[in-house]
Amino acid sequence: MLAGGSSWPARATARLLCIMSAASTDDSPNKVSANPLPTAEYFAEYGQLYDHVGMLQDEQRMTAYHDAIKLNAERHFKGKVVLDLGAGTGVLSIWAAQAGAKHVYAVEATDVATHAEKMAEAHGFGSVITVLRGRMEELELPCKVDVLLSEWMGYFLLRESMVQSVLLARDRWLAPGGVMYPSSARLLVAALDDPPFVPSRHSEVERHVADWDVLASDMSTRYGLSLQALAPAWRAEQEQYTFRQAWQGLVPESAGIGEPQVLLDVDMGTVQNDELFGWSSTVQISEATPETPVTALVGWFDVRFCAGLPEGAEGCVTLDTSPTAAPTHWAHTTVPLQPPLTTPTVGVRLTQSTRSHHDLNLTLSYDAGAPPERVGASFAITAEFRGTHARSGEAGVAPADGFAYDDDAA
Amino acid sequence: MLAGGSSWPARATARLLCIMSAASTDDSPNKVSANPLPTAEYFAEYGQLYDHVGMLQDEQRMTAYHDAIKLNAERHFKGKVVLDLGAGTGVLSIWAAQAGAKHVYAVEATDVATHAEKMAEAHGFGSVITVLRGRMEELELPCKVDVLLSEWMGYFLLRESMVQSVLLARDRWLAPGGVMYPSSARLLVAALDDPPFVPSRHSEVERHVADWDVLASDMSTRYGLSLQALAPAWRAEQEQYTFRQAWQGLVPESAGIGEPQVLLDVDMGTVQNDELFGWSSTVQISEATPETPVTALVGWFDVRFCAGLPEGAEGCVTLDTSPTAAPTHWAHTTVPLQPPLTTPTVGVRLTQSTRSHHDLNLTLSYDAGAPPERVGASFAITAEFRGTHARSGEAGVAPADGFAYDDDAA
Repeated sequence: MLAGGSSWPARATARLLCIMSAASTDDSPNKVSANPLPTAEYFAEYGQLYDHVGMLQDEQRMTAYHDAIKLNAERHFKGKVVLDLGAGTGVLSIWAAQAGAKHVYAVEATDVATHAEKMAEAHGFGSVITVLRGRMEELELPCKVDVLLSEWMGYFLLRESMVQSVLLARDRWLAPGGVMYPSSARLLVAALDDPPFVPSRHSEVERHVADWDVLASDMSTRYGLSLQALAPAWRAEQEQYTFRQAWQGLVPESAGIGEPQVLLDVDMGTVQNDELFGWSSTVQISEATPETPVTALVGWFDVRFCAGLPEGAEGCVTLDTSPTAAPTHWAHTTVPLQPPLTTPTVGVRLTQSTRSHHDLNLTLSYDAGAPPERVGASFAITAEFRGTHARSGEAGVAPADGFAYDDDAA
Repeated sequence: MLAGGSSWPARATARLLCIMSAASTDDSPNKVSANPLPTAEYFAEYGQLYDHVGMLQDEQRMTAYHDAIKLNAERHFKGKVVLDLGAGTGVLSIWAAQAGAKHVYAVEATDVATHAEKMAEAHGFGSVITVLRGRMEELELPCKVDVLLSEWMGYFLLRESMVQSVLLARDRWLAPGGVMYPSSARLLVAALDDPPFVPSRHSEVERHVADWDVLASDMSTRYGLSLQALAPAWRAEQEQYTFRQAWQGLVPESAGIGEPQVLLDVDMGTVQNDELFGWSSTVQISEATPETPVTALVGWFDVRFCAGLPEGAEGCVTLDTSPTAAPTHWAHTTVPLQPPLTTPTVGVRLTQSTRSHHDLNLTLSYDAGAPPERVGASFAITAEFRGTHARSGEAGVAPADGFAYDDDAA
C-alpha cells in the first residue's frame, strides 16, 4: 500500500534515477520469503510520534548512525541510491540526503510515514527522499540500491525480527557491491555478579504465596470456597513469572559484569536467516563454580558500521549497548538463573516465539550441580516483558523497576 | 477443542442427564453467528490465575452472584442443568452445584480450565461439574440447559464483547423457560461535576508540547535536524491521546455525580446483538448550560438477577457499579469533554472497535455552544486504556492514576 500518489514518483522519474544507478530491477530474483509478514500489532509499537521519542533521545544510537553516515559521505553516499528501511520520522534518510545521496527511498509501514514526508520537505529534500508507505515485503522499488540503511535492532539484538525484512530487502534490492548500514552485529552475554535481583525475586514469590493464603482465607469465610486447592498452581505460576521472564532494564556499569561471551557475530552482507533464529550453541561462563554460583546472565549487542573498511579505520563506527558503555534505550536483557549456575557450560537456544514471531524465546540449559541435574529454563523476550514501561511512563531511556539497582539505574 | 477426554463425560452419561432435563439438543437451531470468534489475544487476558485475583477480591461482584444463586437455589438451581459460560476458576459452577444443580457445564477457553477442574474436585463436585475447555461457539453440549450463568460484563458494560458469546449460547442451548443469570443489564452515564481531571489534562498536553521543544532544540544542536516541522503533529497527537481516550478508574463517591441517564436497559432473555452494539441515541445532560459547562461524563453499569421475579422481590439481587455504590474492579469509565458541553443534548454511538471487536468506540456528538459548532469526539474503550494497570501493579481494585482524586480513589 502506498501513501498517496505524491509520495511515489512518476514512473519516468524513477526510471531515470535507476538508469543512472548501478543496477536495474529487472534481474531482481523476486524471492518470496517463507517468513511471516510483520503484523499490525507489531507496527502499532511505532505508529505514533510518541513511540519515536525514546529513540530520538537515545544519544548513543543517534550519534552512531549520524557519525557513520557523515564520516562515509564521500565513500558510500555521494551520488548513490539509498534504501532506508523502517524510516520512522525519516532522520536517517535526511542524513543520507545531507551526505549527498542521489535518491533515498524511505520505507515506513506506519502512519509516521506522513511525518517523514514533512521532515523531508522541511529539510529541503522533498525531491530527494521518496517516502514509501507499506511493508517492505510488499513494495516494489524502481531500481536496486547502493546502500541499505536501517535501524532494525530490538531487545537482545533480534527482538522484533525486523532483521528478516532487512535480509529480504538486501537479497532483493541491494546492488552487487552495495553496502549495509550497519555492516555487522554481535550478540553477547556475561555473568552478572551477585545481583540483588535474585533474592528479591524469591521474596516476591513468597509474598505472592502469602497473598494467596489471605485470599483463600477470605473466600472460605465469605463464601465457603476452598481456594487452597489452587495454592500449588498459584506458586508454580508465580515462579514461572518471576524466574522465567527476562528483565529488560539498565544494568549499571557498577554491577559486576563477567567476561563477555559472543553468541553471534555476523556480517550483515552475508548472514542468513537461520544463522540468526533457531540456532543452538554452547557458551562458557567461566565464573560459574560450585563455590561461586552465578545467579543471573545479562545480554546485550553491538553493531558496527565498517562496510569495506578494516576494523578501527577512520569511518568505522560502533554502537555498543554493553553495560560498560553509555546507556541506550535498548538497556540490557537480564535472566535470573534459578537454580544458580555452578558449572561453566550453558546450552543456548534462540527461537522466534510461536505466539508472535516478533518475540523471542531464549532457552538456557545447564547442570545444576551435584548431584548432576540438568535444568532447562526458557525465557520470553517480548515488548511487554518485565521492566519495560507502558506509555504512562516518561519517554526516554527507561528507568529500572523491579531490579534493586536504585542508585544509577537511570 | 476439549481439554482431554476426562473432562468430557461419556456420551451415555451425558445423554442420561439430558433425558432427565427439560429439553434435548435435537431441536437446537445450530444458528451460526456472524460475529467474529473471541481471539487468542482476548483469552490471554484471563489465562493465568493472576488475572482472576482481582475478580475474586471484588466483594460486590462475588456477593451479588453468591447471593443470587443461594437465594434462588430452590427456585432455579435444584435439579437443574446449568451452563457456566466463561467459568474461570469455577466459582459460579461450584455455587450452582452447592445450590443443588443436577449438572453444571463449565465452559472455559483458557488454561484456567484445569484449575476449575481442580476446584470442582476439591469441593466434591467432580461428577456434577463438567469442565469443557474451548470456545462456546465451537462446543456442542449434550443437551439444553435450564440456567445460563455467566459473568460476562466488561468495562462500560460491553467491553470484551463476551456478551455476544452469551447471546449465542442462549439462543442455541437455553431450554424454553430457562433463566439467565444475570437477567437484565443497564448502561448509564452522568455528568461529573468539575473534575480536577480536565485541567490536569490540559497541563499534561502543554508539558508534552514543551518536552518536544526541548527535544527539537537538542536535535538541532547535536545533529542539525529540524524537528520543529513535526511540532503541530506532536501537539495533535498529544491532544488526541489526552482527550480522546476514556479513563478507567474509580470515581469516588465524593465526586459530584449528576442525574444518571440510562443508555441501555435490556432483558438478557430477549436482547439482540444489534441492541447492544452499533446503536445511536441521544441523552439529555440537564446540568450542561453555558453558565455551567460540563467537562466530563462518567459511565457505569448495573446488572440484576431477578429472573421471573418482580423487581424488589426476595431473591432479586443487583450488582451496581455506580460511583455512589461500593467500588468494584470495573471501576468507572470517564470521558473528558473538550470542548466542554454547554447544551444538554448529546448524541451517543457505541460500536465495536474495528481494530479489535473486544474493544469499544464511544462517539459523543454535541453543540459546543455559541456560535453553534457541532463537535464529535470518539473515545477508545480498551483493555489498555488510560488508568488500567499492567501486571506489575498490585492485584485487586485498581487504584487511580492520572486522575487527581488523591484521597479516596482506592
